[in-house]
Amino acid sequence: MTPKTIERIRRFTDDRNWHQFHTPANLAKSISIEAAELLECFQWSDTEYDIEHVKEELADVLVYCQNMLDELGLDADEIVNSKMAKNEAKYPAELAIGSAKEYTEYKNTLSDKGISEE
Amino acid sequence: MTPKTIERIRRFTDDRNWHQFHTPANLAKSISIEAAELLECFQWSDTEYDIEHVKEELADVLVYCQNMLDELGLDADEIVNSKMAKNEAKYPAELAIGSAKEYTEYKNTLSDKGISEE
Amino acid sequence: MTPKTIERIRRFTDDRNWHQFHTPANLAKSISIEAAELLECFQWSDTEYDIEHVKEELADVLVYCQNMLDELGLDADEIVNSKMAKNEAKYPAELAIGSAKEYTEYKNTLSDKGISEE
Amino acid sequence: MTPKTIERIRRFTDDRNWHQFHTPANLAKSISIEAAELLECFQWSDTEYDIEHVKEELADVLVYCQNMLDELGLDADEIVNSKMAKNEAKYPAELAIGSAKEYTEYKNTLSDKGISEE
Repeated sequence: MTPKTIERIRRFTDDRNWHQFHTPANLAKSISIEAAELLECFQWSDTEYDIEHVKEELADVLVYCQNMLDELGLDADEIVNSKMAKNEAKYPAELAIGSAKEYTEYKNTLSDKGISEE
Repeated sequence: MTPKTIERIRRFTDDRNWHQFHTPANLAKSISIEAAELLECFQWSDTEYDIEHVKEELADVLVYCQNMLDELGLDADEIVNSKMAKNEAKYPAELAIGSAKEYTEYKNTLSDKGISEE
Repeated sequence: MTPKTIERIRRFTDDRNWHQFHTPANLAKSISIEAAELLECFQWSDTEYDIEHVKEELADVLVYCQNMLDELGLDADEIVNSKMAKNEAKYPAELAIGSAKEYTEYKNTLSDKGISEE
Repeated sequence: MTPKTIERIRRFTDDRNWHQFHTPANLAKSISIEAAELLECFQWSDTEYDIEHVKEELADVLVYCQNMLDELGLDADEIVNSKMAKNEAKYPAELAIGSAKEYTEYKNTLSDKGISEE
């Protein structure tokens, strides 16, 4: 998101004096709740979904993620790049394979080596 | 996130040929799963948590959100600004109030007016 | 579950002095966390799953649900029958239909009539 | 739940011809979705919640769990007792301790010994 969008999210919380509700634990709950509302778009069908509804629920997840970044003083780029470095080491591109079953087994094999997924 | 970070996320999926697993439904499941792992950091205590663990799980949520934006051809700024416009209209700043109970009642009151939260 | 199984769950908590952690809020988080672990069995495929893993995760959800019933002094049969009565009134059997799309539209139509799903 | 309550849940699905929607994957999504609605009762406060709302959402989780047991031909007592046996071995009662921090560390210590929580 651009700094302008992030600023809009921050101002929204500031203007309503809602930081008091934005404890990390409450925001973790909120992210899970909105993630489930996003999942609800695909509850009975993987392929027939309302894209407008998906956009709203995905936006809600992103807003609460930004709220959590803000409350904890974190930077999205920093934590994502740090995690991507781990992912790249854990799942070497040259071993990447095809079927869902192999995909899961591949990840499990790596896990068995003590490289736990977090 | 900066374009460079987003590009890193995209390259990770491209290099492993993992777009085949990234259906919108699978990504919605993945966002919920990672959101729950973030919630697990706060399972038994709201105040004692491992910040390094929180950073990793929050990063996982953000990465899967970006994956979903990519697969659906969506722009984070666009969907977030669209949702923030709705939020601003739904929760006027001048009505913002204090306690958690009033906060919930306030939101419920607006919901009762037919302004459902999504 | 039989009274004997329920008693085993209760004794487990009693013997470890874990009621102190079993606040309703913590148990709600725990149910969501275990539900997500169950969902993880189906993260990348709807049809290929490890049934032994599914059994363990579903059991975890059931155990935390029983923990919540216990802490709140609730009876499973009572709350389920009360909810089933609402479901039966909300979704009349004679209107039941076939495709997933119609199913969702049917439920949405009822929702539009002010019969919100909870 | 008593056999009569379970029978009511089964008849509800049968009468509406909804087994077609009750794939294990769809039910796993549904359990997560309802678990999140239960969590929503505690979104902004751990202590102020609407008990009637909690009862309905907890009932929804239980109903979808029963649906999954039914579709997979599983018995609640069997899978729960099997899991409780593992839990009892993993968390010996004589080691049970007091604070949330110790509780988490205790569980982590056991995990470090290769006794992973599932």
